[in-house]
This record gives sequence, C-alpha cells and structure tokens, in this order.
Amino acid sequence: MIAVEEAQARILKSLAKRTLSTEVIPIADGLYRVLGEPIHADLDVPPFDNSAMDGYAVRSDILSSPTPEHPIRLQIVGTSAAGHPLPAMGITPFQCYRIMTGAPIPEDADAVVQSEWTMADPTDNDVILVTRPVSKGLNIRRKGSDIPNGAPILRAGSRITPAITGILATLGKNLVSVYREPRIAIISTGDELIDVDQTPLPGQIRNSNAYALYAAVRSAGGSPILLPHTRDDLAAIIETLDQAAQYDVILTSGGVSVGDFDFVKQALDAHGTQDFWRVNMKPGKPMTFGHYRGTPLFGLPGNPVSALVTFELFVRPFIRQWQGDTEWARLVVPLPLLDDFDEISDRRHYVRCQIKNQEGVVGVTANPDQGSAIQTSWLSASGLMVIRENHGPSKKGTLVPVMLIS
Amino acid sequence: MIAVEEAQARILKSLAKRTLSTEVIPIADGLYRVLGEPIHADLDVPPFDNSAMDGYAVRSDILSSPTPEHPIRLQIVGTSAAGHPLPAMGITPFQCYRIMTGAPIPEDADAVVQSEWTMADPTDNDVILVTRPVSKGLNIRRKGSDIPNGAPILRAGSRITPAITGILATLGKNLVSVYREPRIAIISTGDELIDVDQTPLPGQIRNSNAYALYAAVRSAGGSPILLPHTRDDLAAIIETLDQAAQYDVILTSGGVSVGDFDFVKQALDAHGTQDFWRVNMKPGKPMTFGHYRGTPLFGLPGNPVSALVTFELFVRPFIRQWQGDTEWARLVVPLPLLDDFDEISDRRHYVRCQIKNQEGVVGVTANPDQGSAIQTSWLSASGLMVIRENHGPSKKGTLVPVMLIS
Repeated sequence: MIAVEEAQARILKSLAKRTLSTEVIPIADGLYRVLGEPIHADLDVPPFDNSAMDGYAVRSDILSSPTPEHPIRLQIVGTSAAGHPLPAMGITPFQCYRIMTGAPIPEDADAVVQSEWTMADPTDNDVILVTRPVSKGLNIRRKGSDIPNGAPILRAGSRITPAITGILATLGKNLVSVYREPRIAIISTGDELIDVDQTPLPGQIRNSNAYALYAAVRSAGGSPILLPHTRDDLAAIIETLDQAAQYDVILTSGGVSVGDFDFVKQALDAHGTQDFWRVNMKPGKPMTFGHYRGTPLFGLPGNPVSALVTFELFVRPFIRQWQGDTEWARLVVPLPLLDDFDEISDRRHYVRCQIKNQEGVVGVTANPDQGSAIQTSWLSASGLMVIRENHGPSKKGTLVPVMLIS
Repeated sequence: MIAVEEAQARILKSLAKRTLSTEVIPIADGLYRVLGEPIHADLDVPPFDNSAMDGYAVRSDILSSPTPEHPIRLQIVGTSAAGHPLPAMGITPFQCYRIMTGAPIPEDADAVVQSEWTMADPTDNDVILVTRPVSKGLNIRRKGSDIPNGAPILRAGSRITPAITGILATLGKNLVSVYREPRIAIISTGDELIDVDQTPLPGQIRNSNAYALYAAVRSAGGSPILLPHTRDDLAAIIETLDQAAQYDVILTSGGVSVGDFDFVKQALDAHGTQDFWRVNMKPGKPMTFGHYRGTPLFGLPGNPVSALVTFELFVRPFIRQWQGDTEWARLVVPLPLLDDFDEISDRRHYVRCQIKNQEGVVGVTANPDQGSAIQTSWLSASGLMVIRENHGPSKKGTLVPVMLIS
C-alpha cells in the first residue's frame, strides 16, 4: 500500500513529458479556462490621471483652511466629463472645473473636491463654496497606478476568473490563448450495468459512475467523452480501450479489484504499462494508473463514492496540472468539529462532511453513513474532512483540515 | 445609507412574485443546474443484497472460531459474478460460492469472507481454508440500505453536482427537469468607453466591466447577453433599455452616481421604478435596484472592483434564488489573520484577500491595494474578508469571517 501523496506524486510526474497545445478563443468564452500565454500591460491603467469622484477639480494650494463658516469661493470655468476632450485651458487658483468620476484632470488642477464638501452659492450658479481643507492629490487616480504600461500582469497558467476577464478586457485581449481542455474518454465495464433509461432486471444496476464521472470531468475543466458501456469480455474491452486511446486520457471505473473478472487489468498487461496500487486511503483503496498504448489511464474503483473521491484526489489534479493551472490544489481550511469524531482508521480517511453555522460557530460535521457504496453520503457534502491514518478520536471543537469541494 | 442585509432583503423580496419556468434536459448537460422537480427513488439501492468484497459467500454459523493454525475447510460449489444469474442452489454449512464485488448473495449464505482471510488448499483447487472468524452479515450490502424504494431523495432547488448526477443516473433520470437559466442583459454606458479590440485615444478606456460581468453572470449560472455599448445620451440609453427589457434581468454598470451624466437614472425615472441606494459597504456604495418597464434592473457602480463586489453580494443571490437554488449562499468560514489588519471603516468592508498556508498556519491576508478602481487587487484573491462597520483594528491571529469566492 502506498500513501496518497506518493500516488499523487507518481501520477503528476508522468506529466513532465507532456504538454497540451493552446487555442485562441474570444474572451467571452474564457471563463475558468487556463491562460496559455503570459499577459503584459499594453498601456497604463488608468491611462490618464482621472477623478475618483464627482466634484470639482481645484488647486489645493489655496484650499488648506476653509471651514463651513469661512468657505472659499471658486469660479466654475468649465466641465470635464469622461469621454469628452479635456478642457484646453488650465485654471488659476480661484477657478475650478466641474468634474465627473473617471474624467481627466484639467491642467493646473492637483486635487478633486467631492460635491459633498462644497455648497452652492445661492446668488451665482457659476460659483461654489469649498467648506473643508483639500490636500494635494485628493481623489485623483494617477495614470498607471493600477497597472503600469509594460508590466507583467498574468502568468501563463492563470485560471480565468470574472475579475481576470475584466483585466484581459482592460488590456485589449479580445482574443486570448488558452490551453486546450484535455479530452477524457470514460469507459464503464461490467455485465451488471444497464443504461440509465432501462429498468434493472434481477442482478442488474444502472450505470451511474459513467454519468457522475462525466460531470466530474466537466467540473474539473476537462472535455468528457462517454464511450459505450462494455461487457466483461477481454476482446470487447480491448476494442473499447483502442477507441479510448485516441483521446488524451482514459478513465475506467470498476474492473480493477482482485476479482476474476478484471479484464481491464488483463488488457493493460497486454497493451500497456500499469502501476496497480492499493492506496492507503478510505474510501477508494484499489486504484490503477498506467498507460494503454501510450495514453494515460486511470482505473478508478467501482464503488460510486470511491470513484468520485479518487477522481478528486488523482484525476482532477492531473487534468488541472496538464492544462498548466498553477493553482490547481483545492483549498484546505481548518474548521472546528461540531461533534465528536470517534472513528479511527489505519488508512487516510476522506470523510464527506457538511460545513454549518451551529449556534454562531462555523464548523464541520461528518455525514452519517460513510460507506463507500453509500451515494447519499455525498448529497449534502460541502467538503471532505481529511483525517490522517491512525489518528485518534477527536473531540468536538478540535480543528480538522477540510478540503473544500464546491 | 442602508445596510448590506437590508439591500439584500429588499432585492430578494421582489422575487416573491416571480417564478422561472423549467426545461427538461439530458442528465449529461445538468452539471450545476438547479433541479426543477423533487426526485423519489424508483427502486431500492442497491436493488439486491450484494457483496462489498471479492471473496467467498459463506454461512457464518460454522465460522465463529477459525484461526490460521486451525482453519475451517469450505468446498467451493460455484461462482456468483455481477451481472450473471444468481446461482440457483443454496449452500450447506461447509460449502461456499466464490463471489465478486457487487455480485448477488446466493441463497443460504449470510456473510462474505474476503479473499485476504482465506488460504488456498495446495491439494484441492475447489477448497478454501478460512483463517479468521466470520460474523453474520459481514461484507454484505443490504438491498435498499443506500436508498429505499420510494424515498424522497432530492428536493426541487438542489444544485446538480457530480455526486447528484450519479444519484440521478442510479434512479433512472436520463432526462431531468431544471429551472431555466435567467437571461441577463448587460449594458454599459459612458462616452469614455471603447471596445476591447480598440486602442484608447486620450480620455478613453476599454470597456472591461461588460466582459467581467458577462463572466460573473455565467459563473453565477445565468445566461448573459452583451448589448452594444451605449453612449451618454438619454434617447440612446432608453433605446438600449427597451431592448434589454425583453430579457429577464437588466444589468448596468456606471451611470448611477451623483454626476450630471447619469442618464440611466433619468431613464428609470421616466419608465420604471427605482430604489436608488447608498449601501453602507466598501467598495461599492452607490447602487440602484429597480424595474424598467417591469424588468428587474441592477445599476452597479462603474468602478471595476465595486461592480464585481456588488454583483457578488446582490446580483448572484438574485440569480441563484430566482432559479430556486436553496443553497445559494456562499460559504463563509472563520480564518485567522496572518498579519495585523488596521484599517477601520464606518462602512462594511469587503476586503479582497488570499488564503495561505504560512508556516503551517492556514490563514488569510489582505491584498495590498484595496482601492475600488484597482483591478489588480482581485488578481490572486480567493475570497473577501468581511470586516463589520466600525470594527476596530484586528491583530494577527484574530479569526475573521472570509466569504469564499472560488
């Protein structure tokens, strides 16, 4: 039996020799894709000094001491509005421009006083009364203060969030290079499996893993392909694997335990290389990683819960890393147990759990039945508590690491 | 100024009169959609008693005391394999069936002993030696133990995760009813805006909010429509709003501050109802919610950071709740500050932050420049620290609530 970290390391190491090509897509289609190129600023952001407020562009040198009782009068000589040509004339000390948020700062002005710090002059519409001291630079956003021209802003390998989409737009990237999504062929084997729209006869079950893994691949940013279900027969499995080997990754579930009917292993023996492991984890112990005719193959356990947990720990990191995602790891945060957790295991235990606010304490509680065939244990899970092998019982209030799976 | 909670409550209250229609889609397309129907089990899961292990189906009554030194001999009389007819014959006490994981339990057997607890008989291939005591029910998964036939399993309003996809498949839902994704029309106004593929002239900036909001809408599970950018002109804005009002929600950014050029407000005055608010938050103070010719309209601030934070706090919950998602709230977890946080604000402060493991402590640190126009403050953010209004400075190690934004 090998440790989870060892299995992860061996799997990710196999990526060293592989690269994924990039493709150019419109920015609007880029959400959650991974940047295939570094991005440098092609301009200063903001591109010119501009106002952070609606108000008046002023010279601060004469505004160090006004009060509501002794305001200072300024003559309004024009307006600076966003998207309109900057006023050509500068201002003298007792002049000002009306200015809108985002509009350029007129010449000679060195601060913007917000409207709330001014009063109207009841006798003259072209005059304002400044009622509070104004310091140099107030409410001015300097050219290049967010992003200086030429600066490196995003690494290749950045995941495109809504905020990054906004930055790419600011920097003029209407088209963007992203890594291709790996195509993952999903195979399910087993004479007991029938398709979802059929009614099981005695001894049959519906094929749920293929659909759960299809969704998991999409959720991890891969492009899933569901191959027809294959019966327990070596020739049939080889035929399906040959088809699957044309894609980037092969994913199987079931057929890798120590039973007699494990033709996937036999097929790998004949046409590939394999590491067959028992990983020291619960659920999900038996698991295969190898290559079938050169294509990486994950043989996940057949139990539905084991299949999704091993996907999460081994396949998702592989998909994300291959795509170049430099921040592929799930967030793991420490949270207090809301109940005692007494179960002890000699294997690393990934416990389906819920994060709850219980009487003002945000903490974590294990879902009731943790059996590896108990699909309903996932229903309301917001994460996996990670309990180390041979860890003793933990009392309510103990901090435990929780891997967040949105 | 109103509190964040008050603004949220008013916005969500307007949903009381609205429902969204449902549509039927293939299960493979269901990821992250919201179920439009409750799901009951149409069968027992598992549908029959079956083996949790590869091993031997046995009668436990004679297996209470074997040891490696004094094993008990059993005659193998057949095989039970998943997907093949159940052996017709039962077993006598000293007989057993070879059995595979998932295969049905033969008549008279009441336990499965895993292969690891047995030895081969070197002289007889049809005999195994059981080396450890076997209790009744060992390694048997009982019919209906995961899901009993007829049980209510999923509420309408459940978000379809990979695990729920698996359960839907198990229950034969190859087609599933989900709520329609609301269509969100995105408008941007401002004479200073140019399209992403253009080079700004003096005083111009590229239109980044429209693309950031497009991605944010997709990320929240809405269907975004980008309308052509509209110049600062009342007639043009009314024309665009009339077009936008044919969709489910209108989203604008900019044009809702107190400046002279705020035609969106004037258009709403003429053809709609509006609540114009200053929400007691930072960033994002000015914000409009209303209805334009009956269609809900969000007028978000024009600053890029403010636009995304107000989207997160007000628009995303609206989209999720309208779709019926019962677990729409973001996860908020308490994490220790990795540095002192000294800033005090009289507004609720949503601080872009990073969650990090620093010398073994998982905690949170504020990104450097929190200005509402500083797009780069979002770059590496994994969440928003929520600092209450008038909260004093907080020392390193203090727990602060962090809203997780994946």
